Formats: sequence, C-alpha cells, structure tokens
Amino acid sequence: MKYFPELLKHGIACTPRYVSKVSSSKPHSLSNSKRKSTDGDHVWKISLLKRLKSNNTDFKDQKKGGGKDAIAGKNIIFVAGLGCIGMDTSREIVKSGPKNLVILDRLEKPEAIKELSGMNPKTKVTFHPYDVTVPLEESVKLMKTIFDKLKTVDLLINGAGILDDHEIEQTIAVNFTGTVNTTTAIMPFWDKRQGGPGGVIANICSVTGFNSIYQVPVYCASKAAALSFTMSLARLTPVTGVTAYSINPGITKTTLVNKFNSWLDVEPCVAQLLLAHPTQTTKQCAKSFVKAIKENKNGAIWKLDLGTLEAIKWTKHWDSHI
Amino acid sequence: MKYFPELLKHGIACTPRYVSKVSSSKPHSLSNSKRKSTDGDHVWKISLLKRLKSNNTDFKDQKKGGGKDAIAGKNIIFVAGLGCIGMDTSREIVKSGPKNLVILDRLEKPEAIKELSGMNPKTKVTFHPYDVTVPLEESVKLMKTIFDKLKTVDLLINGAGILDDHEIEQTIAVNFTGTVNTTTAIMPFWDKRQGGPGGVIANICSVTGFNSIYQVPVYCASKAAALSFTMSLARLTPVTGVTAYSINPGITKTTLVNKFNSWLDVEPCVAQLLLAHPTQTTKQCAKSFVKAIKENKNGAIWKLDLGTLEAIKWTKHWDSHI
Repeated sequence: MKYFPELLKHGIACTPRYVSKVSSSKPHSLSNSKRKSTDGDHVWKISLLKRLKSNNTDFKDQKKGGGKDAIAGKNIIFVAGLGCIGMDTSREIVKSGPKNLVILDRLEKPEAIKELSGMNPKTKVTFHPYDVTVPLEESVKLMKTIFDKLKTVDLLINGAGILDDHEIEQTIAVNFTGTVNTTTAIMPFWDKRQGGPGGVIANICSVTGFNSIYQVPVYCASKAAALSFTMSLARLTPVTGVTAYSINPGITKTTLVNKFNSWLDVEPCVAQLLLAHPTQTTKQCAKSFVKAIKENKNGAIWKLDLGTLEAIKWTKHWDSHI
Repeated sequence: MKYFPELLKHGIACTPRYVSKVSSSKPHSLSNSKRKSTDGDHVWKISLLKRLKSNNTDFKDQKKGGGKDAIAGKNIIFVAGLGCIGMDTSREIVKSGPKNLVILDRLEKPEAIKELSGMNPKTKVTFHPYDVTVPLEESVKLMKTIFDKLKTVDLLINGAGILDDHEIEQTIAVNFTGTVNTTTAIMPFWDKRQGGPGGVIANICSVTGFNSIYQVPVYCASKAAALSFTMSLARLTPVTGVTAYSINPGITKTTLVNKFNSWLDVEPCVAQLLLAHPTQTTKQCAKSFVKAIKENKNGAIWKLDLGTLEAIKWTKHWDSHI
C-alpha cells in the first residue's frame, strides 16, 4: 500500500507530493527519476551538493517552545492514556492544565474519564475508542475527527503497548507498527511542507530497547524499534517541523509486569525474577514523564527508572553522512 | 496465537512444555501458577534464589566449536541466499565447502542455483521457495521437511530484507517478524530442553540498526528490532543451546539501495545522497560475512562496512539484573 495516496483521500490540503525543503523550488527536477535535459542534470547536481553540505553536520538538539509550558493550555492526544502507566500520567498531565486531553484507548473506562474530567476546571477530557492495530486509513480518519473539532493539536503521546512473547505478531503490531502508523497518521496535519504548524511526538518506548530482558526478546525488539523510529523522527524536524522524544520507563509496577509469557517459555518465572529487583511505581514514573514533557527536548532519549529522569546519550557506531 | 501448541502439532518430540534449565527437576512446582502447598512454596523460593544468583552475572561471549570450521562439512540453511548480498555470500560459502547449502528464497533462480551447484563438488546446493511473511506454522513445516532430509542443520542464516518506507507493514513483516518467525520455527529442532543438539543463527541486520538513516525510519527501526532480537538470542544460549550473532552490513552497492522510497517522501533523493558517499561491493561484504561465520562468536555484533569486519561493543544503559 502506498501511504501517500491513502492520506490524500481524506481531504487534507497538501501539495501533489511531499517535497523536501531543499528541493522545494524545483520539486520536479529532483523527484522525477526520468530526468533528461542537461539543464535538469545541472540543477540536480547542484542541489545534491547543497544537501551533502547541509546534511553532513551532526544533529543538534533543539528546544521547541523553550520557556513556554508544553502542557498548560495545550491540546494533547494520549494514546493508551488509561493504561498501566497511562492513567497516572494522565492524572499528572491534567494537574498541569492542558486545554484538551483527548484520550484514545482500546476500552472506554467511564470511571477513569469521570475522575480525570473532575480534576481540573481548565481541562476538557474526552475519549475516543482506538486500537492502534487498525489500518492506517482508520487512524487518519480519527485524527481528522479530532483536528476538525480542536483545530490544533500540540502533542501526541503514543503509549500503546503489550508484553506477551507468546504473541509475536500482536506484540509487533501494537508496540512497533501501532506507533509508526499513529505517527504517520498525524503527519499530514502537522507537516510544515503542507503548511502545517508542526507538533510534538512523545513515544513511550522502554529501557528494554536499550538493553533487553533477553527472556522476552520479541517485546524488547519491538521497543528497540519504537526507540529507533523516534530517534529518526527527531532528526527529521528540519523537514517536517515535527519534534520527537522517547520516554523509556524502567521496570514499573503495573499489571503488565505482574505476569507475562517469555518467548518459548525460556523463563517461566520472568515476572517474579524481575520484580525481585527494585522497581518504580506508576506514580513515580508519571511524575518523571511530565517533567520530560515539560523539558520538551527534541531528540531526547529519556530514561525513567527508579523514580529518576535521565537523558541518555546514544552511542554512534555508524554514520550515514546524509 | 500461542506458538507452543502450534509447534507441537508437527510431531516434534518435546516435553509437555518448555521448562527452563534450573527448574527442570521440578518443572511443575515452578510452572504451575496455582501452587498451594507450603512445600511447593519452599521449592519455589529456593529455585528463585538460585536463579537470581545464577542469572545476575554479566554475559560472557562464548565460542562454540572454536577451532573447527563453521562451514566445511556443515549443513547450512540460507534464507534469501540468492538476494542482493545473499548471492555473493552463497558463492563465498560454497567455496568453503559445506556439505549442504539449502537456499530458501521467494523466487527460484535456476541459473543461480546451477552456478552454485557447479562450484564445489563437496557441496550439494538445494532450493525451497520461502516467503518469510507466511504464518509461523508454514515455516515450521518447511523446517521439518529440511530436517527430515538432512537430519541435522548447523547454521541458519536469516537474510530476508526489503527497503521501502512507503511499505510500512511489509517492511516490518519481512525485516522483523520474518526473522523472529523463522528463528522460532527452527527452535524445536535445536532446543536443548527438548534434547536438541543446539545450532547457530546468523541474522543479517544492518548498521542502520545502530544509528539510523533517518529518512527511512521504518526500515532502520525494523533492523534495530532484528538486532535487539539477535542480542537476546545470544543471551539465551544457556537455556536453548542455540548461539546467535548479527551481521550488520554498511551501505553495500546492491539493487536494494539503487532507488528506494523514504518515509512520506521526506527525502526523494535518499538513494543518490547515500551512494555519493563511499560504499562497499557485495563481494567485499560477502568476504567479511564468511569471516564472521568462521569466527562463530556467540553474541557478536559484526559491523561489515567498507570492506572491513569489526565487532561492535554495545553500550549498557540499563540492566534487567535477571
């Protein structure tokens, strides 16, 4: 499936195709693979050199909206905002007074919504059912519904996750593909190449994306994927206007880790073993999470472990030079 | 889908459930969640303590079959052995004289098979059609066919890969899920918990799993996932008897990188930009690949870039302590 035509269907204003910043003045000379004229070739070469120059610099962290509160008065979409880590984080977010908190989750929990709605008169809390494993077009439709209503969205938090290494396809679909698709679905509304205002993405990955719990290799790999994807998003900011950072919780006492299956049952006691070591509470995790949101640092790899918040420096083993 | 019952269907001899090494003498006291007797609880606690002790040590690299040739006289399954990097690697492998090289690929290329078959009288080259995106049970059936014929297999190389960030689902299905499923499918034939002889897995990941080409975030994330999965496999050797290492090629001049789509067309010229920097040939890559196979180092993260072979040391940002 080609995503671009799919995204166009939904009546989103955009140019005939995505065109990168440098090529915007001559989109066709660059994007058309059947270049023929010598003149076209000339333009092509100059542009290529320009890009080689402009791209071959180390990425600098950027603060977006530095000084301004990234929550107060803002419109926030929180995928899995009623989940294990989600619910306490939603509580902490509402305390900081966003204008709108739109919670997308698989199951509606009216009691939870009611609680969040009653917490802060400045904040309107709404709910839409959403399963991140639906086809991309469904995610785009939901985004359109939300944007039609709110006009602007400032922050998208992707927090859907499952932990069960008997369920290979589902683990990958929720933890990795779900994050990619939800992100892809919001892009037409934010992408500066289409006149969009930009936006911020906070992806809940995991410390197991840094170094795995090897007894659940599929879960950890799906988290490593979400982490890598988020790092790439952050480097795409000059093109898209969208910033991104990853939230990587350590072992947090939730129902998710109370009991779960290891891959091929390599370790039937993996949950018990894990919980025999120090952990953090969802409340501690939520507090660190909101700190990270307020830091609003593009490209940050946040480690939220044992009640602390720390920015990780990723090791460079290789460079694409582009 | 629960994979374990699925794997059982195919007539593979195994115990009623996978049981981890430490618990093998008392499998039910550990695996049964409805433990009732005080005695049972006692056994449980001792075993848990034992594991905490035995597991809480840093993983040491292990050489398996050190000194012995990991190719000559061996039976090798090569998924995508006729592919971009695959074909030249198959040539190099055949030169080293395995007993059997079983190539699994989407498309049969009779000319390629003929060429490989004629290269070394010591080596029998065979072919089975295989698409890594088939359901796990199909992969298990194919493994059974191969094991029925060869009796033993020494090395599985997972090399299926696509590069096209317009195709999110397919990229994830081939590069990540395909690697996991093919690995999962061979485990019942190798797993020492079922009396299997162990085996070696070489997963072709990518340097973009270390640090991404951010213009193709989905591809790079799928490779980061395959890399993480492989690192976990290597740490599971004490349980499974199966060793694993990753093969991470840098940019290699193949049809794969001649032209490919970036995510949301963030960079229409990504292939040209990439190829404007130094690359390696598939032949160089293949030679490094065979060197790595011969090193046969469990847990190794091999970087194969610009004609060189180098072992990467992964940074520890977090430890599960189990």
